[in-house]
Amino acid sequence: MVSRVIYGRGSFNQLSDIIAPKRLNVKAPFIYLVDDVFKGNAWLTSRISLAYEDQLLFISADQEPTTSQVDDLVEQIILNHKDRPSGIIGIGGGTLLDLAKAVALMLTNKGESKDYQGWDLVKSPAIYHVGIPTISGTGAEVSRTTVLTGPERKLGINSDYTPFDQVILDPELTTGIPKDQWFYTGMDCFIHCVESLNGTYLNAFSQSYGEKAYELCKEIFMDDKGSQEEQQDKLMMASWHGGMSIAYSQVGVAHALSYGLGYLLGTRHGIGNCIVFDNLEEFYPEGVALFKKMKTLHGIQLPQGICSELGDDEFNIMIDVALGLEPLWENAIGKNWKQTITRDKLRSLYERM
Amino acid sequence: MVSRVIYGRGSFNQLSDIIAPKRLNVKAPFIYLVDDVFKGNAWLTSRISLAYEDQLLFISADQEPTTSQVDDLVEQIILNHKDRPSGIIGIGGGTLLDLAKAVALMLTNKGESKDYQGWDLVKSPAIYHVGIPTISGTGAEVSRTTVLTGPERKLGINSDYTPFDQVILDPELTTGIPKDQWFYTGMDCFIHCVESLNGTYLNAFSQSYGEKAYELCKEIFMDDKGSQEEQQDKLMMASWHGGMSIAYSQVGVAHALSYGLGYLLGTRHGIGNCIVFDNLEEFYPEGVALFKKMKTLHGIQLPQGICSELGDDEFNIMIDVALGLEPLWENAIGKNWKQTITRDKLRSLYERM
Repeated sequence: MVSRVIYGRGSFNQLSDIIAPKRLNVKAPFIYLVDDVFKGNAWLTSRISLAYEDQLLFISADQEPTTSQVDDLVEQIILNHKDRPSGIIGIGGGTLLDLAKAVALMLTNKGESKDYQGWDLVKSPAIYHVGIPTISGTGAEVSRTTVLTGPERKLGINSDYTPFDQVILDPELTTGIPKDQWFYTGMDCFIHCVESLNGTYLNAFSQSYGEKAYELCKEIFMDDKGSQEEQQDKLMMASWHGGMSIAYSQVGVAHALSYGLGYLLGTRHGIGNCIVFDNLEEFYPEGVALFKKMKTLHGIQLPQGICSELGDDEFNIMIDVALGLEPLWENAIGKNWKQTITRDKLRSLYERM
Repeated sequence: MVSRVIYGRGSFNQLSDIIAPKRLNVKAPFIYLVDDVFKGNAWLTSRISLAYEDQLLFISADQEPTTSQVDDLVEQIILNHKDRPSGIIGIGGGTLLDLAKAVALMLTNKGESKDYQGWDLVKSPAIYHVGIPTISGTGAEVSRTTVLTGPERKLGINSDYTPFDQVILDPELTTGIPKDQWFYTGMDCFIHCVESLNGTYLNAFSQSYGEKAYELCKEIFMDDKGSQEEQQDKLMMASWHGGMSIAYSQVGVAHALSYGLGYLLGTRHGIGNCIVFDNLEEFYPEGVALFKKMKTLHGIQLPQGICSELGDDEFNIMIDVALGLEPLWENAIGKNWKQTITRDKLRSLYERM
């Protein structure tokens, strides 16, 4: 679990005070990885104080994060600084948070990040890393994974060293997000809950977190009451609890298929999950029915036919990625999942999207 | 926050594997502090494997933990072992968990434990410490405090170094608790939630945890459905979430007055909270009404008239302890709490108990 968390509107202002004691020496910089939507946004950037050799890197979140991007960032940081950094601070959505986690891990672990995709392959603790979400839903701020697209697969680096040492939850930072993105990312949380609560890995720990997050999502996306501030506060907590729920269980069918879309077509995680989930009535009848209601209520139009022009080879690539995620299928279906989750079954699901 | 948590029935069996990598050397023992109700209980003790100079100390939880008890334990550990211990493992209810936390802190911080009662007075990180609750409700497994009765006051050592490094949540360990104790300790959690949710310190973080714990308590103590195992699982999670809720807000009137009872009369925390809370309709009308229903439903008879034979001096001692807990009153009543929370007011409340 994340060992230090602060929560509150305006808590972002405490960043400098929080990280100051973690500075190793004047040559060991803090590296800020910031979503480039904040480029030129003084409201946020003026509150990041760079000292000594600290560096702020704006990074686009238009593409899902890749292992080669992580390796390049690590190389760049090593070449540009004499000492190993004092810490990595990720500011943004799931992409930036996952990049920050992965870079912090790869600064202390040899080789390439693709070699660590999987479960518990990381040997050395990461350097100090801080996560500051600016959009809610992914649960990346609390999870023990960092999901990367590698040369062979889209898969997380899941380890005890992955979670942030410090998280700052400031709902004020989630102001001004485009409605579509707000919905897709929020639905990532909703889908986490459905997958966790309907999974065979469920236990009372993940259930209690999943139920609370599910309830908060319903309040936010169905009732739509309360001020914008209250909605932001709630969604930030829903994301947190949803992330905790899957940390102690696992995701399921939607994530497995969505990883396939992401790997082949580069479909962003949030919208990819929505496209997939919209077609999963047979696995999650209640959750999908509620999802369709929320989609209508907020006037969201999902892209249709994104797989309509794909050939056999392309379907097979997606199917390989999806089938490789064994723990997800085992959670969703049970130990005998291979009896029903065949290549043909997945092909027919992808063809509907 | 606690950085490592495992959850599950039977997870206690993993204790040895979990702590093994934390052994500093063969002369640096693990010290187990275990509730003495488990003396002769091979079902539990046979699963604690003592190696090298490891030591198991059975400790009675009949009395609330005191600062002098902590100082004595620390002295005993230092005298009996050449090296500083590799870790402290607390196994029991709130008393044992608080003792484990306090001993771990005082092995690295000079002086007497009474000097650290308060907020953020601890200077050095504690040694590695593990908490394993065997009764649910106190939230001691997750909190950043260890509440001790000192020569001058009953007050917690609240610090970032107090929380456990590792918690093992195994609901199976909560089997066989006497009904009264189950109720009183469970109500500690319920009261945490009422105090947190009705406090001025409330924010969306503590609210989401408090609401979930409150709901679980209602399911456990009002609906009384589900198997004994499910009830145990749920109460362990209620305790956890209730503890998280107050970690990010504060307790209130019931705890302030209960600390007074505990300090003067040695009233145990769980039953003390119940005796106080039963008289707090004016502060928490809804919560107290529900509490009275649960009390009736489970046939719980609270002691009456425990303050009936006290003199002025004794009332004043309790009032001093209660009024000293300023953050609790500020949370419960607001910044101007001194206008209504007078000595006379507290005297009249204590006289009803």
